[in-house]
Amino acid sequence: MNAGEFDWIATGFRPLAAAVAGARDLRDDAAVLPVSGLEHLVVSTDVLVEAVHFRSLDPAGLVGRKALRTNLSDMAAMGTCPWVYTLGLAVGAGLDAASWTMEIAEGLALDQREFGVGLAGGDTVRSAGPSMLSITIFGRPGPGGVLGRADARPGDDIWVSGSIGDAALGLRILEGNLDTARTTTALVDRYLLPQPRIALGLALPGLAHAAIDLSDGLLQDLGHVCRESGTAARIRLDTVPLSAPAAVLVADRTVDVPDLLAGGDDYELLFTAPVAARAGIEAAGRGSGTVVTRIGDMVDGDGVTVLDHRDNEVHLETAGYRHD
Amino acid sequence: MNAGEFDWIATGFRPLAAAVAGARDLRDDAAVLPVSGLEHLVVSTDVLVEAVHFRSLDPAGLVGRKALRTNLSDMAAMGTCPWVYTLGLAVGAGLDAASWTMEIAEGLALDQREFGVGLAGGDTVRSAGPSMLSITIFGRPGPGGVLGRADARPGDDIWVSGSIGDAALGLRILEGNLDTARTTTALVDRYLLPQPRIALGLALPGLAHAAIDLSDGLLQDLGHVCRESGTAARIRLDTVPLSAPAAVLVADRTVDVPDLLAGGDDYELLFTAPVAARAGIEAAGRGSGTVVTRIGDMVDGDGVTVLDHRDNEVHLETAGYRHD
Repeated sequence: MNAGEFDWIATGFRPLAAAVAGARDLRDDAAVLPVSGLEHLVVSTDVLVEAVHFRSLDPAGLVGRKALRTNLSDMAAMGTCPWVYTLGLAVGAGLDAASWTMEIAEGLALDQREFGVGLAGGDTVRSAGPSMLSITIFGRPGPGGVLGRADARPGDDIWVSGSIGDAALGLRILEGNLDTARTTTALVDRYLLPQPRIALGLALPGLAHAAIDLSDGLLQDLGHVCRESGTAARIRLDTVPLSAPAAVLVADRTVDVPDLLAGGDDYELLFTAPVAARAGIEAAGRGSGTVVTRIGDMVDGDGVTVLDHRDNEVHLETAGYRHD
Repeated sequence: MNAGEFDWIATGFRPLAAAVAGARDLRDDAAVLPVSGLEHLVVSTDVLVEAVHFRSLDPAGLVGRKALRTNLSDMAAMGTCPWVYTLGLAVGAGLDAASWTMEIAEGLALDQREFGVGLAGGDTVRSAGPSMLSITIFGRPGPGGVLGRADARPGDDIWVSGSIGDAALGLRILEGNLDTARTTTALVDRYLLPQPRIALGLALPGLAHAAIDLSDGLLQDLGHVCRESGTAARIRLDTVPLSAPAAVLVADRTVDVPDLLAGGDDYELLFTAPVAARAGIEAAGRGSGTVVTRIGDMVDGDGVTVLDHRDNEVHLETAGYRHD
């Protein structure tokens, strides 16, 4: 269950999942349902609401693709091959339902070809307010099984794919909250169209101990891994991979790295793996065309500690994640 | 795909399902996905939006149960045993998220016990406007396989479960659009808390040719069966089963039966079956504690014809379904 600000609500729903084999107490990116003999189905669901998860002005085709891709990212985090999905659409007030939904269908068609998934069913209704998209996605695990959040162990390396913080910067640009003179559309594209790391995720079972996709910000999502695994994490600020445009903004102090660690919508994979797996993970990165970077390690204890380049602890405010 | 007023939209999404084995071109109450060898999973999804599918004042616990039950009704129409479901929640503006979602969880807990299903995953987010619930439900077919809408044949009897039109009357009472002096809370209850016909549905594979659950009104949903099956239907007004309070309102001409045939939210089953299956279907009704009633037959042609008690055709306006 990806509950975001409503994480605490999952506690209320957890009893409803107690008797469901494979629901994992709603603590993971997806449920792993036994369907027949040795076969399992991996199932995840995400809701996107206009003005919360996408902007009213965002092109509908991109909104549809983002909704699908956030679900594909959950499959990647589970190390699972996506298969089919269902789509619930609430068409917002004032929209031309025909053209809006056709744009969404066209966007989804593009991504179906790119990711090899298909639509299995849906429901389209009218909303008196904001638009909403709800996707439930089904995946089938490979022979290596599935990954989860709960199996990180002290001594594991912490890895991330790609670069961190770009989508949050892209959103700030779109909202006019960041000077765009020195930035590029690459950051905006990262916000509008996340890149689920399916191929990397499929290579991780058997190598990694735990994985999660970054939707709520690296610090918060790594905190989930720590809590579910009963361990602590240390990350080194100067090892966090940044894109070229993000690095420019950090260099001139427009933003700082802790800001980026708190920014949502990365949809990169964060995973932990034993030191002995380093060569295998680097090979998996090359094989999937994905940059993978070690940013720290898991240790005994609880919570996430952030270190600067001299290994001094950086104290972050809970709310804003700012430097002291 | 239950598209309601957006039925035409399904056409746009249909190409997205073309390559999905068992998606049934999005034409049925659910998809039937092959998961392993001989095993299939039946999957359906429904979206409920505040002010469209439920009223803002409706108790949250009942709203949650209604959302689950409309999905259970889809499983019943497929002749399938419900298993688990995922829940997407968008908490509407101005609501106390904690108490609203807890009420929903408590309502769902009641229905999980009644229907033997469990929660497999979910996502809870904030909406800037109306609340929304999106449920995707998973069922596992029994040994008799699944039912669909497309296999009705000329010569079949048309059957319905329970009584027709009560929920639409209940909604009119709630909205103050019906004199309530001579009515009972039974009609309101039928609107707030539909009764999915799971046990009857499970008994129908092998007996019935086609089935659908009534969500958009009997005439419209029977029209779906006719279109998907390439046949026509004739129903006799005086055979349509009415509850006692609905019969009183018809007798004193407060409402007429065609109005009731156009009313949504019945969540009864409509199914077609060969004449030779009559005894079996009556036994299935007794076995499941569900009244079943023959209301007409399938014939060659297309569309739905309504006959009065003298077998004269009743002409209904397309929009309002009124008597001539």
